[in-house]
Amino acid sequence: MQDLAAIETPDAGLSDEIVAAFQAIVGPEHALSDPDQQTPYLNEWRGQYTGVSPLIVRPGTVEEVSKCLALANANGIPIVPQAGNTGLVGGQTPHRTNTEVVLTVERLKRVRDVDPAGNTLTVDAGVTLLECQQAAEGAGRLFPLSLPSEGSCRIGGNIATNAGGVGVLAYGNTRQLVMGLEVVLADGRVMSDLNTLKKNNTGYDLKNLFIGSEGTLGIITGAVLRLFPLPAEQATAMVALPELSNAIDLLGRLQQRVGNALTAFEFIPRLMIELDCRHIKGARDPFSSAHPWYVLVELSGWKTDGTTQELLESVLMEAADEGLLLDAVVAGSVQQSKDLWVLREGISEAQKPEGGNIKHDISVPVRLIPEFVAKADARVAEIAPTARPIALGHFGDGNVHYNIIQPVGADKAAYLALGPKISEAVYDVVGELGGSISAEHGIGRIKREKLVEVKDPVAMSVMRDLKRLFDPNGILNPGKVL
Amino acid sequence: MQDLAAIETPDAGLSDEIVAAFQAIVGPEHALSDPDQQTPYLNEWRGQYTGVSPLIVRPGTVEEVSKCLALANANGIPIVPQAGNTGLVGGQTPHRTNTEVVLTVERLKRVRDVDPAGNTLTVDAGVTLLECQQAAEGAGRLFPLSLPSEGSCRIGGNIATNAGGVGVLAYGNTRQLVMGLEVVLADGRVMSDLNTLKKNNTGYDLKNLFIGSEGTLGIITGAVLRLFPLPAEQATAMVALPELSNAIDLLGRLQQRVGNALTAFEFIPRLMIELDCRHIKGARDPFSSAHPWYVLVELSGWKTDGTTQELLESVLMEAADEGLLLDAVVAGSVQQSKDLWVLREGISEAQKPEGGNIKHDISVPVRLIPEFVAKADARVAEIAPTARPIALGHFGDGNVHYNIIQPVGADKAAYLALGPKISEAVYDVVGELGGSISAEHGIGRIKREKLVEVKDPVAMSVMRDLKRLFDPNGILNPGKVL
Repeated sequence: MQDLAAIETPDAGLSDEIVAAFQAIVGPEHALSDPDQQTPYLNEWRGQYTGVSPLIVRPGTVEEVSKCLALANANGIPIVPQAGNTGLVGGQTPHRTNTEVVLTVERLKRVRDVDPAGNTLTVDAGVTLLECQQAAEGAGRLFPLSLPSEGSCRIGGNIATNAGGVGVLAYGNTRQLVMGLEVVLADGRVMSDLNTLKKNNTGYDLKNLFIGSEGTLGIITGAVLRLFPLPAEQATAMVALPELSNAIDLLGRLQQRVGNALTAFEFIPRLMIELDCRHIKGARDPFSSAHPWYVLVELSGWKTDGTTQELLESVLMEAADEGLLLDAVVAGSVQQSKDLWVLREGISEAQKPEGGNIKHDISVPVRLIPEFVAKADARVAEIAPTARPIALGHFGDGNVHYNIIQPVGADKAAYLALGPKISEAVYDVVGELGGSISAEHGIGRIKREKLVEVKDPVAMSVMRDLKRLFDPNGILNPGKVL
Repeated sequence: MQDLAAIETPDAGLSDEIVAAFQAIVGPEHALSDPDQQTPYLNEWRGQYTGVSPLIVRPGTVEEVSKCLALANANGIPIVPQAGNTGLVGGQTPHRTNTEVVLTVERLKRVRDVDPAGNTLTVDAGVTLLECQQAAEGAGRLFPLSLPSEGSCRIGGNIATNAGGVGVLAYGNTRQLVMGLEVVLADGRVMSDLNTLKKNNTGYDLKNLFIGSEGTLGIITGAVLRLFPLPAEQATAMVALPELSNAIDLLGRLQQRVGNALTAFEFIPRLMIELDCRHIKGARDPFSSAHPWYVLVELSGWKTDGTTQELLESVLMEAADEGLLLDAVVAGSVQQSKDLWVLREGISEAQKPEGGNIKHDISVPVRLIPEFVAKADARVAEIAPTARPIALGHFGDGNVHYNIIQPVGADKAAYLALGPKISEAVYDVVGELGGSISAEHGIGRIKREKLVEVKDPVAMSVMRDLKRLFDPNGILNPGKVL
């Protein structure tokens, strides 16, 4: 899993002619070679990757994106497409080779159209996820994609990585929320497939090839997004469970009783609640005693008559009677609901001060989550007996964020050196249970070598053929995914 | 729109060596050259296409499909993949050239796995849609794809054409119901992407390329289907509307009030109800007087406490108070519900005795359906003033089946000769309203020439590139789609 490109030294640069040609396309003020100006585009936000690039280009129109790619393609210049630079697998930053031009879509900021009757929102790729949500809400509709980074991530990046998040349970991945795309191909041609129709069986489905391809097949410049009715009320509860397996029964019960009104079902272990309370301002344990596992449940309703909260309370009551849960706190106000969500939303920040952390974003069949956690914990314990595993995430999607925090007081570097061995053990368990090594974060550069091991060889070969077809000169995000 | 291949005369045939090689793969009893045995595979069920083929092969395993394709690819023998032979655009039958081998997946009949906890059903491509529904129901789950031909169409064909139907409103097209695929590529390689996970971001999305590609990129041999909770009760109503535009308001009201519990919203014009009553046994008008438009509404509920019917009645009552509807009949029993559905299900049979019929399967944004119908009726009237247009279908999906029946007593052949002119006029209106010339039936050979006119030229070019990549020798369903 070593990233060879990361240890290479800067060299190449770009000729003055090429720099001038990019400047002529985007304007000199949007072709950045000054190191200070470049910094935000070169650094991955957690500091795991820092790239070196001769030029950051910020095209302001689709036509400029097209011209940039035509220029790059004709001259064999690698392009790293970037949107909000919030990715978690190293896909959006350049290598340290000083050969790759970063092309950011951040200046493509137009909300092109909102159609509440047709339930569609058409936007430029550089619109932030939060702005998409706001545009939908302004038209009385919901755009349900929701991520911790929604204030800074941009929809083009969300689509290119098929982002997940807490809304997937009821509304699906980004893939399910995209109806049409506009994509600039490697040679600069603009492919317009901005479909707004629910049914349109006219030829091959091209958009899904680009969704989740992490900028390796084309650059997404625009998208038609699917909107939903805006919930009128929500009810939130934190539920304490004796065992993780009880979450399977509770989830089944909720889905049978409330169907798609179940809009979040996030699981959290005891240790995470403790770290939340230790490190997150305003976080507090909603229960008076400690419990092994917790589930944050949210229901949405489309009437403002309080039935959503009643429904949640009644289902939880039933579940309590049958011994599926130990205790439950139902939020009685919007503030109480926020207080519960803090415990989920703070997880990233609350883990940081604890030191070295070896993270995984995996999925398994929902019913096998408890088995995954038990087995993975055991395998990790063989390697690092006092390390602290934290399994949490989107239970209803089978998606476990499995992070193993260093032992208290251990040497961070020495612990992180165990990373490859620990990850290998975790992925072994994933494989044994028929799971996926990347549930929602993608492949990027982190899982590129692992992908070859787990993917069907014919599918892998087809992927390589597609890459050659769409990007014969290999200029689009080289060294990522494939 | 003339189909040149259809007027060619039989010639080529196959060499004895090739026939023997196919026989060796599938067994002599499954390599049919006898004309009587071939008949069911050569005739499109409405009689619009009759092909001529030197050989029908019926492989019994994925391995046999693989060997057949490897043989065909090495020898440049065109293959027409076929499943249930119920397609409506001429995609599944061979041309009259006597060069194309029909490969049917009808003997791939295994239900491989049903996982009610994971909500997945894994099947061979030759399992009928009805058998898929039954396998799901046997495990207490719903597979919501539903078509008039469900007893004979096969899931491989449903997937290859991205079939629609009445369940799309709540559950999506076939595309949304497929989680993974197994596909035999043109050269015989078997690509296994039988994903059962809700979240799996490991590389390019390959399955969606094959879904809806109508057998031109590979042959689907297996699929993982998505299951849903089985509704415990349903409520059905026929609603009479003063104007088609009222359907927009009624749909909006229902979606706001019942969300995904709205599982059917089909619109039907007065003339169709009359034809139903004239030609379909057991069909009768549920109302005592005639009304311009009708909508068949179905709600599903997941509890057996009668609340679904109460909910339907209360929403219809509100709508009546606001003048959105003229009258409504809510079924009080399963039999009454069936009596209402007969009026929708009989539409194809009830149109047949009326003579020549020029049919279209189009979609437009939902809010523009009334405008589409008004404009298309007017354009058609300019060409054939006494012809009888019937607009009906899946209102909530924007999907209109727009059929124009010949004038009473007219000469059928003379009327059908107007087909190209009438279709051109209809597709013009579709284009003006931003619609699609094929909502759910696909392109096949009927709309192949039209596709080039309406598709983005870059997308069209990418489609051709993909065809060349996946099928360099052009053996897979030639002359279809592209």
